[in-house]
Parts: sequence; structure tokens; C-alpha cells
Amino acid sequence: MGGTDQVRSTRRSPATTNGGDMWQNPEGAPKNLASDAIINLDHGDPTMYVPFWKSIGDKCTVVFKGYESLSYFSNPKNPCWFLEPKLEESIKRLHGAVGNAVTDGYSIVVGTGSSQLLQAVLYAVTSHDQANPINVVSAAPYYSSYPEIMDLVKSGLYKWGGDAHGFDKDEPYVELVTSPNNPNGVIRGAVVNRGGILVHDLAYYWPQYTPITSSLDFDVMLFTASKCTGHAGSRIGWALVKDQEVAKKMTKYMEVTTIGVSKESQLRVAKILQVVADGCKRFGSPDGDNFFEFGQKMMAKRWEILRETVKKTQMFTLPKFALQHCTYFGELTQAYPAFAWIKCKEGIEDCEKLFRGHKILTRSGRRFGSDPAFVRGSSLYIMRQHSGWSFISAGAPRNKGL
Amino acid sequence: MGGTDQVRSTRRSPATTNGGDMWQNPEGAPKNLASDAIINLDHGDPTMYVPFWKSIGDKCTVVFKGYESLSYFSNPKNPCWFLEPKLEESIKRLHGAVGNAVTDGYSIVVGTGSSQLLQAVLYAVTSHDQANPINVVSAAPYYSSYPEIMDLVKSGLYKWGGDAHGFDKDEPYVELVTSPNNPNGVIRGAVVNRGGILVHDLAYYWPQYTPITSSLDFDVMLFTASKCTGHAGSRIGWALVKDQEVAKKMTKYMEVTTIGVSKESQLRVAKILQVVADGCKRFGSPDGDNFFEFGQKMMAKRWEILRETVKKTQMFTLPKFALQHCTYFGELTQAYPAFAWIKCKEGIEDCEKLFRGHKILTRSGRRFGSDPAFVRGSSLYIMRQHSGWSFISAGAPRNKGL
Repeated sequence: MGGTDQVRSTRRSPATTNGGDMWQNPEGAPKNLASDAIINLDHGDPTMYVPFWKSIGDKCTVVFKGYESLSYFSNPKNPCWFLEPKLEESIKRLHGAVGNAVTDGYSIVVGTGSSQLLQAVLYAVTSHDQANPINVVSAAPYYSSYPEIMDLVKSGLYKWGGDAHGFDKDEPYVELVTSPNNPNGVIRGAVVNRGGILVHDLAYYWPQYTPITSSLDFDVMLFTASKCTGHAGSRIGWALVKDQEVAKKMTKYMEVTTIGVSKESQLRVAKILQVVADGCKRFGSPDGDNFFEFGQKMMAKRWEILRETVKKTQMFTLPKFALQHCTYFGELTQAYPAFAWIKCKEGIEDCEKLFRGHKILTRSGRRFGSDPAFVRGSSLYIMRQHSGWSFISAGAPRNKGL
Repeated sequence: MGGTDQVRSTRRSPATTNGGDMWQNPEGAPKNLASDAIINLDHGDPTMYVPFWKSIGDKCTVVFKGYESLSYFSNPKNPCWFLEPKLEESIKRLHGAVGNAVTDGYSIVVGTGSSQLLQAVLYAVTSHDQANPINVVSAAPYYSSYPEIMDLVKSGLYKWGGDAHGFDKDEPYVELVTSPNNPNGVIRGAVVNRGGILVHDLAYYWPQYTPITSSLDFDVMLFTASKCTGHAGSRIGWALVKDQEVAKKMTKYMEVTTIGVSKESQLRVAKILQVVADGCKRFGSPDGDNFFEFGQKMMAKRWEILRETVKKTQMFTLPKFALQHCTYFGELTQAYPAFAWIKCKEGIEDCEKLFRGHKILTRSGRRFGSDPAFVRGSSLYIMRQHSGWSFISAGAPRNKGL
């Protein structure tokens, strides 16, 4: 959500769709690039963080014995009875160490990724007695999966209401505020401002992607391990929820739909977040164990290549981000979003088609409620040396060890 | 589902609700029982299998390093792209070794427990173009969570249609066939028989609970690790699906709602199922590594205590099960269901109230679309020595080391 990314027709290969086994290694970088390879920048698989996790050795290793974690229950004393206490503790520690969100006074609800938590929030803030489903809106360009999530089972509780900019109904609504925004990396606030229910999707509000400017304290804040630490395969998201009753109803949703959340994933992510929190204040450490420092450097490098390439082509424009004081790094920093929101120059109406013609898969602006002159390209999945961005300029040589 | 069990108002303590820490150990047996303890047999937490898993040592131990399993993808070549190949292989091996379900020609879809898979099936077999939601029915007594799952978000695709026995509409329908049935352990078939879509919930079709009489080959068959091996905390279910298109749509549902299923849980359950399959043909082994043999002995012991107790009280009746030839054990065996469907003697109208008066929490027959003269009690959560069933006779002494 905001952070996660659903895989559509292109899913058969995470990196390319030429079927070459060379590309079937989602955990590592490809060794070569065939001349007919299709580069898939459609979705954001955060395997780029693998080198960091390799570098820290066994600090994050977890072991499960056959007899452990059989019960449905993690903490019967917690209203969210399937939340592992260690995960709860790590989440609080990490937000404290990063300074990006307040946790005091909040209930934590864990989910199978943050997509499930979004559905849980919608269940929690609506009522079975409503005559009509409540509109759920988000300002365009919005995360392309929101409409699909909202309308999947034609719920009578909620429905996709489209671009928040165009929402003018005098009735209750839910507004999803994705910040930094997927696809364009922009820090956003609510746009409707008529007393609706706000859900803040903060998947990317971490120091490697954007300057941390304050510790947020919105009513409902969603996060996911997928984009925070890159552990997308674990499917762990969490919600910080101010209203206990909302948290309880969210828990109920999780109880009915999946009877809780994988204990193995929770315990593993607990360990990972703890290690990240421990390394948080060690900047420039020779151990190199500040994850966000590593992440930011990597993102900065990718954006440097991307901006250089785009400049050369003279065919595209990219968003610009102002320098801001980041409370985490204690200095002026730049945003390096996980996705690049690329606009074609005047005269090219279908940017996605243009890229596809050059065997680069991106996601059309249309899918985000925006203009087809835009595409979203993943900067998460770009390979370390063989950066997909290198191929943005049409006809760039392939298979040349770039 | 069928196998899993949602936790309601009683959830604050898995075993009892007296708040005593003595009972807050879901992985082990209580050491003592306070005189005012409330015994909770409302739900079925399968921690009774812990001793088996302790006995086999490190055979099932799994280790995850920090850099493993970051990607969303498990197998891009499989339409169910988030299914770990090792889990797929173990599922096939186990069904082959037990002989309870055919896997050749079936697609396997993994879910966050089988509840999610049931929702995925309903999404897969219905259409957005339907004018009205399709009725989903199941013969009473039916699994008490089905109505709640169906109507959770007031879907326009499907709705709970109640007891299948009373379904007489001349229109499409889905019938859930739970076999062995939760709550009463009975082997069942479809009852409507008018060409509807059948979903077989086979959570308990394993040798410790019921004689295996044939290798089933229904269109959609749901299983869960929770009741098969007792690893409920892992939240792993799987569906065997004959129609590839249905499997693809189920995968889509999982993709939109949770973007796949925890890799850690999948890999751990893969190992566990593999060990169970390996031990399957070693009956009476001095190593005692035949899980189903262990499970059946334990269930048989519990049912022996239960039947003795019920006989003494003269207040209740229990279902009777015919001896049948079990192809797994190669002999005549008895059913030992995970739940006991208890009927009060004539004149007692509310069996659940009677039990509650004696501080034993059960689930009323009403919740299963049946008569309040019935209750369902869990035989999974009963403690090893301090069997909850010992307290069925009213006023049985507590805290006596029974």
C-alpha cells in the first residue's frame, strides 16, 4: 500500500519477462542483460537492500524450533491478541529512534502487510447500518492499487470514490493520504478538509526516501516492513491507531479474515526492526550498520544516475524536491523516492507505450488517476550496476556490461 | 475454517478467563487449577501437539538469515507466484503419503490460513456483473464463523444464505461442505444438489481425527496447517483447485488483499509437512515419529475420558461414530473429532448456560445454526492431565490435581 505493489500481468518475472533464467534471481543482481531482455520497472520489489542485510552477518538471524509458536495467541492481554509483544516493542523503539511517528498513547495493530490494515481500517470506521457505502478518496496521482482494493468484493461498507480533488459530496468520506506519495514522492496533506476520516499511509516516511521533518501523530498511520527494511516477503504491516475502539474493530477484521498474522514473520521482523533501531544513531560507523544511512546513499546514487540519464535524453522530466532539514540525519537532505514519476516531453501522449516500445515496462499515469504522459518507474528494483535507468534513452546498448 | 476458530469475547485468555498468570501459557499445560478458574473450551487452540514437536528435536528447526526472503516473489513461474516451491512440494508429498486427497492435476493456492482461501474462492467463483450477491450455504450445524466471514463487509458478490437444508431458491449458490464437520465431526456430502458450486473444507480430514476412507478429488478442497500439524500461529492454509482459472482468480484475491503470504511461515510449514510425510509410514516406530499415530492416540485418550465422564453424569449425550477401515492406518478406526458436540438431556434448554454456570465456556448450538440444547466443546485445548472434560460433571472438585 502506498508501500506495497501489486503485481499484474507482468508478474511472471520480477525483473524481466524474457523468461531468461539469468533474470530469475529476485534476491540478487543480474549478471548480464540479453539484447532482447524486457526490463520490468512496473513494480517495486525491495531486494536492493539485500547487500546491507548480508553485511550485518548473523545479527538478524532467527531460529524457529518445531514446537514453537503453535498457538493462535501471541498476547491474550492485548486487545490485538495476535500481536507479538517483541514486535510491538521493536515498532515503538524504531519510531522513537527515527523520530517519524509518535507511539505513546497509540494502539498498535499488526497486519498481513499494510494492504490488509487499510481494509481493516475501512471496516472499523464504517457501519453495517449504513444505507450506502462510504466513499474512499485519495488525491491523484494516487496509489494505483487503491481502487482495486476498495472495489474488490463490492463492499456495501465502502467504495472507491476517485480523486479527492474532485470529491464534492456533502456526506461522510474517508480520505487516504499517502505521504510521501506513491507514485510521485511528494509529501502530502488532506485535500478535502470537510471533517472526513483520514487514513495516513506512511509506507515511505523513512529517512532513506525523504527528509524526516517531524514525528507525526495522525489518527491512523500505516507502515510496512516491505519498504522500511525491504522485507516484503514477510508481509508485515502495522497501524498506529489513536482511537482504541477503532483498533479493536481492526483487530476484529483481522480475526475474521485471517485469524491473526504469521508469528514467524512477526518475530523475524521484530528482530530486524530492533537491529535497525540499534544502528540508528551510529552515523558514519565503520561497521556500516546504520540501515537508513546505507539506504539513503543507495537511493541517492540511483537518483543521480536517473537524473543524469533523463538530462541526456531531453525527452523526460522528473519531479524536483526541495532540500529540507531532516531531524534524523541532522542536516539538509533531499528526497529520493522509491518510484520515479516521469513525464514525457510535449507531444508524446502515451509515455508507457514509448517505454514499452523500448522493452521497459512501467506503469502508466492513467493507473494513478493521472495523465498518460506520465509513467511510474520503480527505483527499488533497479539493479545495482546494470541500472534499468541506463536504458531510458531509447536504443541504449544492451548486453554491454553497462 | 472448519479448522480454524475465531476468538470472541473470551479471547483474553486462551485457556481460562480468571486472569491468573498460571493460565497464560498457551504452549504448555497448566500446573494447577484454581477453584474459581473458568475453563474455556470455546475455541480450539491446537497446542496439545507441542509434546510431539518437542520430542522430534531439531528435525523441524528452520533458520532465517537477515538477507533471506526479501522479495515479494516466491516462484514467478507459478501462476500462484507467492507460493514457495518447497511448500508446494511438501503439500503434494504429504497428501500422497496420507492418501487423503489427490493433488495430480490440481493447482495449489496458499493462503493466510484457510479462512482467507475461502474468501478467495468466493471471489473467484462470482462475478462483478452479478445483479445480486450469490447465496453461500452450509448444512447446520455449520462452522460458526461462516456467517461472519460471509457478511463481514457486506459484499455484493456473495452473502451468507444460512442452513443448506432450507435452501430452496432456484438460482446459483455456493455450498460449503465441511467434512469432517465442525462442530460435530460427521463426514458429510453436499445436501442441496442442484448444480451449485461446492467448496470442501477438509481441515479435519487427517488420520488423527477421522478414518481416511479415500483420496478425495473435489473441485476445491481447503486444508490448514493449524489442524493438520497444530501450527496455528503460522497461519498457513492451502487450497487444491481443479480449475486453473479459479486458482488464478484466487491468487488475484490474495494479491490484492495481502500481496501474498508470509514466506517465513510457508518455509517453516514446508519443513514441518516434509517431516510429517517422512514419518508417515513408520508405524509403531521406537522413534515415535509418526505424527498421526501420536495424534490419534492423544485424541483417543481424550475421547475416552470424555465418554466416561459423560456416562457418569447421565446429563449429556455425545455423537457416536461407526468403526471404518482407515486406509492410512490399514485397520478399522474410530473418529476422534477436535470438537465434541454435546447434547443436554431432555428438559435442559440452554446447554451453554448450564456449562457457564459451572465456569466452563463452550459455544452454544445456536451459533452453529442449531439447537441451544447443544454445545460445542473443544477437545483440542483440553489440558494433558487436567482434562477440562473432567469438570463436565457439575461441581466436580477443582484444584485437586485431577
